[in-house]
Amino acid sequence: MELDRVAAELEGLEETIILRLIDRAQFHVNTRAYRAGESGFSGEPESSLFELRLRHHEEMDAQFGRYRVPEERPFTSGLPASRREVVLRGWEPRVSSYDAVNLTGAIRSSYMDFLPRFCPPGDDAQYGSSVEHDVHALQAVSRRIHYGAFYVAEAKYRSDAEGFAEMIASGDVQALAARLTRPEVEERVLRRVRAKVEHIQAGANPSVRVAIPAEVVVEFYSRTVIPLTKEGEVRYLLGRER
Amino acid sequence: MELDRVAAELEGLEETIILRLIDRAQFHVNTRAYRAGESGFSGEPESSLFELRLRHHEEMDAQFGRYRVPEERPFTSGLPASRREVVLRGWEPRVSSYDAVNLTGAIRSSYMDFLPRFCPPGDDAQYGSSVEHDVHALQAVSRRIHYGAFYVAEAKYRSDAEGFAEMIASGDVQALAARLTRPEVEERVLRRVRAKVEHIQAGANPSVRVAIPAEVVVEFYSRTVIPLTKEGEVRYLLGRER
Repeated sequence: MELDRVAAELEGLEETIILRLIDRAQFHVNTRAYRAGESGFSGEPESSLFELRLRHHEEMDAQFGRYRVPEERPFTSGLPASRREVVLRGWEPRVSSYDAVNLTGAIRSSYMDFLPRFCPPGDDAQYGSSVEHDVHALQAVSRRIHYGAFYVAEAKYRSDAEGFAEMIASGDVQALAARLTRPEVEERVLRRVRAKVEHIQAGANPSVRVAIPAEVVVEFYSRTVIPLTKEGEVRYLLGRER
Repeated sequence: MELDRVAAELEGLEETIILRLIDRAQFHVNTRAYRAGESGFSGEPESSLFELRLRHHEEMDAQFGRYRVPEERPFTSGLPASRREVVLRGWEPRVSSYDAVNLTGAIRSSYMDFLPRFCPPGDDAQYGSSVEHDVHALQAVSRRIHYGAFYVAEAKYRSDAEGFAEMIASGDVQALAARLTRPEVEERVLRRVRAKVEHIQAGANPSVRVAIPAEVVVEFYSRTVIPLTKEGEVRYLLGRER
């Protein structure tokens, strides 16, 4: 449980996020898929197609045990219980409930804000494919943010248990956030993400695959992924049971 | 509806297949996930976890209308009806039922044969993630093969309707298969797939992401994807309604 291993895991999740965003960008923005009451899904007059897909997917995933894994936090509530046991790969976070750190609301709303910036504008009527890929992209982002929130925070805590315990006891959120911030690491992540977006797409035929702008992904990382990870780390530490 | 546009679509699906195989390879072979009776899923004593995930996923997809799309053929039978209308992007194949061309049985069994060649050996207990990624990989492969079967075949038919009509009328499968074979195109596809596998993985950190051997993907294409596409083209043409 050292910071290097955790950082390596986070690095591996970068590809997944980038690839999921590229997958989604093969379809247009398709605003209609996000409008309540326009799902065209029988028996569901009030939801959007996106909401329905997300819920159905998470209902399935819940039965297969996805949310028994700390970093897999659901976007919807009232999900069915798991029907199988799940073996955790690592250490279990010290919180009463994993959902004590659940940032999916903020992840979803930020993702929706970014959508028109990495997908081609307009409507191609491919609503089903669009929302299918939205779910995968959101899950990838959520996994990265919650993995960081639990495991980066715990690794940092263990590197200076006394110092952190003091800040936690005093409830000093500002001090905690400052202590968790490492600008040089953030800069390195952003540079790496940019290079990966550019590299991955350089091999594709632009007349066949839609490319996404590297700076949009970098901005998504700097405005959403990194800050929400840090917010999750703070929440985790404040809720940490000793 | 010309062959170039269809070929471009097939080319775009190469990335998807390669990326799904790489995703799956982040987990070990995990044989247990494919053994009947060892799913650990409550109320399902007889299936494997893989079968259950595939079925649950396809049951969801069916409700969202996936199988209303010609090239999306299901791996399981007895699926629920679609709960929404789906707008087809292109032309509708001239067959009484899309499942007149359904090669998923062969796709699944060939994929299973290849699995130990692109995933690390052994067991990491990540069964849920493994089968989740299997489903996505299988869907990507199926989409490519059935897209080719319907649309490549139709485009070729239209380029020489009389010649094809004669071969179809005489039921000469050998002649049809020969007429559909273009070795120089197949060679180009294989070279391109190899280059893509190498390129995509060159940007990743090998200590963080498991890489898959390019030659295994090339072999999967040459032994499975290309021949099954051609078999699907033959089936389509033999079942084609004039």
